[in-house]
Amino acid sequence: MLLSPPAFALQDRLLARWAERHAAPEFDTISGPGNPVIIAGYGRVGQILSRVLRMCGVPFTALEASYQQVDFVRRFGSKVYYGDASRLELLEAAKTGEARLFVLAIDEVEASVKTAEVVRKHYPHVPILARARNRVHLFRLRDLGVKHIWRETFPASLEMARQALLSLGFDTAASDRAMVLFKQHDERQIEAQYAVQHDEAQLIQSAKEAAEQLQGLFEADGQQRPEGFPQPVPAATRGS
Amino acid sequence: MLLSPPAFALQDRLLARWAERHAAPEFDTISGPGNPVIIAGYGRVGQILSRVLRMCGVPFTALEASYQQVDFVRRFGSKVYYGDASRLELLEAAKTGEARLFVLAIDEVEASVKTAEVVRKHYPHVPILARARNRVHLFRLRDLGVKHIWRETFPASLEMARQALLSLGFDTAASDRAMVLFKQHDERQIEAQYAVQHDEAQLIQSAKEAAEQLQGLFEADGQQRPEGFPQPVPAATRGS
Repeated sequence: MLLSPPAFALQDRLLARWAERHAAPEFDTISGPGNPVIIAGYGRVGQILSRVLRMCGVPFTALEASYQQVDFVRRFGSKVYYGDASRLELLEAAKTGEARLFVLAIDEVEASVKTAEVVRKHYPHVPILARARNRVHLFRLRDLGVKHIWRETFPASLEMARQALLSLGFDTAASDRAMVLFKQHDERQIEAQYAVQHDEAQLIQSAKEAAEQLQGLFEADGQQRPEGFPQPVPAATRGS
Repeated sequence: MLLSPPAFALQDRLLARWAERHAAPEFDTISGPGNPVIIAGYGRVGQILSRVLRMCGVPFTALEASYQQVDFVRRFGSKVYYGDASRLELLEAAKTGEARLFVLAIDEVEASVKTAEVVRKHYPHVPILARARNRVHLFRLRDLGVKHIWRETFPASLEMARQALLSLGFDTAASDRAMVLFKQHDERQIEAQYAVQHDEAQLIQSAKEAAEQLQGLFEADGQQRPEGFPQPVPAATRGS
């Protein structure tokens, strides 16, 4: 019987108990044919990816460095191998060279960057989709040639911001438009910061300029606030 | 001059240094009129919310328990008050009773739940938008009557999963449809698990059933995998 990764609800409750009872064994050895997708990191993000792939009938090999996590999800039927995904031996055993996609879903920044380094060096033909904790993490992955990177809390933050505007009485069109404007602004800001990331003074200057630009964006786009909010002071008349 | 919260890039690099130089003072006192939005927690999520609100000309009061975080972002012109958002004195000082929206963006689960408890008890008329770390956190907030809750890494995980399918050769329509099917499935699973959350045996049974259902969803919907993936074994003929 094939089972999915367990619900997070179960994990949080039961993990501590398994951890007490199960000491970590030697690293796993992986046998059998390679799968088209490797998922490194089997936490909140890696498990959602694995469930979607399973739903769509795409076989994957998951690698996770925490033995408690692996031992637990295995009991629910998932195939997850225990080991450090930045170790070339494990990547070789997982047949990473034959994979069509490498999902880098490790939450810890240094472990993520180290794994990206090894995969980029030894399997440069395998595309990587990566999770990043924040902008600095994103910049480091980008430096390694990773093209597809998601900041892990950014899309949820945008969904919350959209709902905040709706709750405050902004209409749907204005709320949707605000999200488009903000995303465009944020992407430009990331490009600008990436270009000067090693110069602290320029980084601060870039952040200040981005903040000034952001201030007038919504109005300049011809969007309306609902009644009851103060009219903002135009940027040109604000003190500096 | 009004400045936005600093870029995360700056934070990570500079926070450690500020922390060394600045000891935490007494909790802040807040003066001036109340704002329509209170943001509790000024980390990655709270800062995105604040930037969107600033873009749209919506005044807010941000509360953050970490003094290093507050001290740092203040230097870039943001108004953030240092203090524990679960303390009624601070919520009173922030004029939470007059707010039209309370954004609960605290990352730490216990602090988040404690704050939600106090806000729900003393300001039941103020709607809450909340960030949750995982399902258990979501269930606890829901128990307190919070209606709008986002799992912080869930939307990013879905975006990554969609891109994974596209990278594997699924067409856009099938990839989009997979996301719809998965979200619907996941929402049903959350409802089912919420109903039995205090019964471990039923929770495990629910997770197993959800996994079985997930397995056949994509095919049952008439969706096609690209060439080159093995045909999955139908659920009825799998061993159990």
